[in-house]
Amino acid sequence: MEKINIQVSKLLSEIKKQKPLIHHITNFVVMNDTANITLHLGALPVMAHAHEEAKEMTGHAGALVLNIGTLAEYWIESMLKAGKTANEKGIPIIFDAVGAGATAYRTNACERLIDELNIAIIKGNAGEIGALSGAGGKVRGVESVGKIDDLASIVRNYAIKTGTAVVATGKRDIISDGKTVYAVDNGNAWLSAITGSGCMATAVIGAFCAVEHDRALACAGALACFGLSAELAEKDAKGPASFKVALLDAVYNMDQKTLASGAKISEIK
Amino acid sequence: MEKINIQVSKLLSEIKKQKPLIHHITNFVVMNDTANITLHLGALPVMAHAHEEAKEMTGHAGALVLNIGTLAEYWIESMLKAGKTANEKGIPIIFDAVGAGATAYRTNACERLIDELNIAIIKGNAGEIGALSGAGGKVRGVESVGKIDDLASIVRNYAIKTGTAVVATGKRDIISDGKTVYAVDNGNAWLSAITGSGCMATAVIGAFCAVEHDRALACAGALACFGLSAELAEKDAKGPASFKVALLDAVYNMDQKTLASGAKISEIK
Amino acid sequence: MEKINIQVSKLLSEIKKQKPLIHHITNFVVMNDTANITLHLGALPVMAHAHEEAKEMTGHAGALVLNIGTLAEYWIESMLKAGKTANEKGIPIIFDAVGAGATAYRTNACERLIDELNIAIIKGNAGEIGALSGAGGKVRGVESVGKIDDLASIVRNYAIKTGTAVVATGKRDIISDGKTVYAVDNGNAWLSAITGSGCMATAVIGAFCAVEHDRALACAGALACFGLSAELAEKDAKGPASFKVALLDAVYNMDQKTLASGAKISEIK
Repeated sequence: MEKINIQVSKLLSEIKKQKPLIHHITNFVVMNDTANITLHLGALPVMAHAHEEAKEMTGHAGALVLNIGTLAEYWIESMLKAGKTANEKGIPIIFDAVGAGATAYRTNACERLIDELNIAIIKGNAGEIGALSGAGGKVRGVESVGKIDDLASIVRNYAIKTGTAVVATGKRDIISDGKTVYAVDNGNAWLSAITGSGCMATAVIGAFCAVEHDRALACAGALACFGLSAELAEKDAKGPASFKVALLDAVYNMDQKTLASGAKISEIK
Repeated sequence: MEKINIQVSKLLSEIKKQKPLIHHITNFVVMNDTANITLHLGALPVMAHAHEEAKEMTGHAGALVLNIGTLAEYWIESMLKAGKTANEKGIPIIFDAVGAGATAYRTNACERLIDELNIAIIKGNAGEIGALSGAGGKVRGVESVGKIDDLASIVRNYAIKTGTAVVATGKRDIISDGKTVYAVDNGNAWLSAITGSGCMATAVIGAFCAVEHDRALACAGALACFGLSAELAEKDAKGPASFKVALLDAVYNMDQKTLASGAKISEIK
Repeated sequence: MEKINIQVSKLLSEIKKQKPLIHHITNFVVMNDTANITLHLGALPVMAHAHEEAKEMTGHAGALVLNIGTLAEYWIESMLKAGKTANEKGIPIIFDAVGAGATAYRTNACERLIDELNIAIIKGNAGEIGALSGAGGKVRGVESVGKIDDLASIVRNYAIKTGTAVVATGKRDIISDGKTVYAVDNGNAWLSAITGSGCMATAVIGAFCAVEHDRALACAGALACFGLSAELAEKDAKGPASFKVALLDAVYNMDQKTLASGAKISEIK
């Protein structure tokens, strides 16, 4: 068994042991699903965006997940307030750049958050990371459309430029902290048939980052865990909605041993 | 087979082929379900309400769905901004008048949107359409209560008065563009046991209207597609929640042939 | 059969007969689930928070459910406006103090609502009730952590102090109106694996309170109904998401006879 599989599978047990609080400031579409998936992993989710409590809530958290899926000014300010507290306390910020590239407002909001906060992980689909990094990439609404060549180089270079870890999800997920580049080949085609699968993946990343300082390793473990859960869920899928039920069940039922034997993580040199 | 069945079933294939972007400005209760049903049909949903991006997002869309289920001033303004762009670009606006008649604020918001925008389709349950058209109709919260006589005439006359297509959903759905009146008899009693079934129907209408200019035909096809999916879902329903899972699966699995043979659309002369 | 079982089971039939409108001003995470559970019980849910309609909507309702899970100033004001109308008209207010004790802002918001409104029922988990009552109790995010001794006395004393009925949910639910103290031992471990189970319980309490003036009795019936539904759902659970589907189905399928024979309510002297 690969050494990395053993490493990442132990993180899952750590989440269940430590039960870190994960503070989400996220979009209206996925709140229920991402709160549930956080809880199913063994962590404690809290969704809170009021300016009056953003700092205090983040102060208790093991990770802060920011997601701009249904952004508006008030929420961007919430993210900045919570994010500054996270930075002061050394709490990792995971940023999901939903729809970056789809409108100027979204792209600008991303740039503002990345500029004003010290973000640990920037995550998007290939189109969103392409748009943010300036490498191209087309986004319609919140979907990546079109093809991007050599995503691994784009991800690594954008990680070097920003000083964060960068994750581009897709059939093959690419992760880099600027030095190491990982590919994760777990996953299932049903994931693209449900809304918010990317947001759910981000929630899983949040939980893994709350227990592991090596950002690229935590992301690789999270995406292997999420993708492997999707693989296991397939047998109960009669369509996307029954798949989603089975996916959430599978995340809950995932254990260290299953993850160690099923994770498909490779390093790209 | 009826000619209209062949026509509407082709629209489903068109949606899967064209993958139109559907911009929703909708309520908090149903966002996840309506995003999912849009995606399951083969279209691309995006939920976005920020004033700063409403126009740009709508500009890329094939249809704009407005739903006032959990309305507030900011959201009404978002709808007006997005709606004006839709009108400039000839993008159809589908308006779901959730709870019209339940409070003065809702009724006034509906009238403002209908007055300031050139709406393609006004949709509600019988009570909501009754309230908006001045024909009577009682709404408690968001439910139609009481009985309305000769709904077909009310719908047709309201369509003539407003110059839009009008849809009143119920056990028998009634659709008119002022000239033709269609009745759709697909559907299932479970639909009334779940929250947001009307909002989901509206999302389906949005996708069909993105690929067909004949509004009444598009609505008839959408409601036949949605209602037939509900019929097929019934066998897996042990209650309303398992029905909803089966309904979303059935929408995803619906194909041109099944829709052509199962649609129950008739013209009311 | 216990007399109280017969009493509370009749309330379920009353809900189905009267179909009371339940006005919810609640959080984004659970809106879909709590609207659905209200509908499944036989009541009519409406989610509405606009200041312009809060009073009018509440005026038509049989109960007002307030839940601060994702609170912000605008929503607190909505709750106060709706709540004042409820008080004027004698409509019971059920208040779910989600996350009380987690941040000063939440605790203060709770105190403000309890101070300015005449609330019928204050409901929380043991940590939240402990925090509000000053008896201690630790809350991380929205989860009760740590142990509280003699919860029955805390609940009864807090009920006496506030002049409301008080509900503390947990493995054993404790309810008191300051005189009677009930314990409800229905429930299932899966409830703690899903987000919003407490919020769903509150929605059930709202429906029961719309048809019964004895607050403690209504709460005991509601929590027995919800907990027994969870017990019945267990057999279909392969994980938390399939459990949630089965739970909602079971709430819909619950009937007077099943509730009368399965409710586990006892009085604590």
